[in-house]
Amino acid sequence: MTTMRDFSTGHEWLSINTATVRRQWRLDRIVDECAKRGIRAISPWRDQVAAVGLQALARQLRATGTVLSGYCRGGFFPAVDAAGLRTALDDNLRALDEACTLKAPCLVLVVGSLPGALEGKPAHRDLARVRTEVRDGIAATLEHARRMKMPLAIEPLHPMQAAERACINTLEQALDVCDELDPSQSGALGVAVDLYHVWWDPKLAQQIARARRERLLAFHVCDWLTPTRDLLNDRGMMGDGVIEIRRARGWMEAAGFAGFSEVEIFSEHWWGRPGDEVLDTCIARHRSVV
Amino acid sequence: MTTMRDFSTGHEWLSINTATVRRQWRLDRIVDECAKRGIRAISPWRDQVAAVGLQALARQLRATGTVLSGYCRGGFFPAVDAAGLRTALDDNLRALDEACTLKAPCLVLVVGSLPGALEGKPAHRDLARVRTEVRDGIAATLEHARRMKMPLAIEPLHPMQAAERACINTLEQALDVCDELDPSQSGALGVAVDLYHVWWDPKLAQQIARARRERLLAFHVCDWLTPTRDLLNDRGMMGDGVIEIRRARGWMEAAGFAGFSEVEIFSEHWWGRPGDEVLDTCIARHRSVV
Repeated sequence: MTTMRDFSTGHEWLSINTATVRRQWRLDRIVDECAKRGIRAISPWRDQVAAVGLQALARQLRATGTVLSGYCRGGFFPAVDAAGLRTALDDNLRALDEACTLKAPCLVLVVGSLPGALEGKPAHRDLARVRTEVRDGIAATLEHARRMKMPLAIEPLHPMQAAERACINTLEQALDVCDELDPSQSGALGVAVDLYHVWWDPKLAQQIARARRERLLAFHVCDWLTPTRDLLNDRGMMGDGVIEIRRARGWMEAAGFAGFSEVEIFSEHWWGRPGDEVLDTCIARHRSVV
Repeated sequence: MTTMRDFSTGHEWLSINTATVRRQWRLDRIVDECAKRGIRAISPWRDQVAAVGLQALARQLRATGTVLSGYCRGGFFPAVDAAGLRTALDDNLRALDEACTLKAPCLVLVVGSLPGALEGKPAHRDLARVRTEVRDGIAATLEHARRMKMPLAIEPLHPMQAAERACINTLEQALDVCDELDPSQSGALGVAVDLYHVWWDPKLAQQIARARRERLLAFHVCDWLTPTRDLLNDRGMMGDGVIEIRRARGWMEAAGFAGFSEVEIFSEHWWGRPGDEVLDTCIARHRSVV
């Protein structure tokens, strides 16, 4: 019987995915605002990092004592032709390099799906094909990731994003890929469990237990609102929706996970609020409902 | 090796779910418009039936030679208390009666989920609880359904509708319930496979094969648009999205399904077009892409 960590008295295990306040602040400001509040971890996105400079961010992280709970993101492997597949792999190698520079614990993979679908012009409809391309892309990236000692975390995305963003849509499917490509559970390949994407899954508890500590590389939280008005940018603050967050964290911890609880909220509502309010609310809800 | 039925030269296996043109026409008009076009099957909704009268519809079906491919719908079992559960069961018994009167081949079950969530006020967040209530509700309804010889078809809904409309969200989960409640595969309990809800599932082919003919009671088609702008009412006409409809129909037929292909499109776009255009397009697309 595992005893869950008590989050009610502090927020040492809170991390902020920097997309949560990306409209309010540049990344360097986000790092400072987090540090000021005793939030000791973040998970930044590559475009935000590029805007402030990789080395400048690395220095700021050291100066403020901030660590990463993950680096967003690699992936988007499928393409229409061999040249496109090669370009995607090269980009993933650059993401790995950046993750190493920032001493991230893992590179999060949003694996991609039908090429062109994100732009509303899918080049084809063959899900089986892109799932094979994703498997092959992860396998090729994994060779480099092992050498660089940077774990890859496959993030299953909600099935409503299966056409455009990720053709890996359940934890079971992600773990099947892990088992195929890393049968020894070396720690080089695992999953990012984002409750927004997987909360509905009747096999969630079972698959978290299957993953075990070696595969549970990241834990993302927010909430599912009723109604949800947009497929992408209507995520809720923890406690405002229907996800049983604490129950799921219990499953994670029972399986051995002891890392950060990363808040990732894509929301027109929260992007429209002052950044101070968003971060303060994240801290309060982390304590009260996560 | 099964040879698929050829739909390209006719539409004898086309059925129209009457929600597809519910804003354009009353149900009696829909029946006439379908009959006029040689569409020999429909699947009506209870509110549409109530508006024209059950017996009047039964007479019109006989007069026009129209049959049903299913009856929409029973379900919505979970409730906040025992009285609510009882009310839901009673309502399902009435739905069974109506389905018998209309000689439907099955009563489709949209099983329900968190009580109050549909109105934006979920009474609780306990998915495990509502899944148990759904299992118990189906079991109780099944006793009557067997006696009345009216098969129940569990329709797994897309995970994006897990909070409000159905806590059964994959074909595997639906079939697990079938196996538990009807282990002998008597034909009294099965599934409605709506591609809009399950197209993304990496286990779709495997689970259709598992279901076999005895469990495959209905087949619904439409398409998944990229982008999808609304979680409920932005379904696409077959051919306008990314679902590999014919491939999936092949899996259905290989498993023994030989029934209607029922078009069910909830769409602000198509509800805004003339009913004639919608039905004619359904016929054309049934031939060209289903």
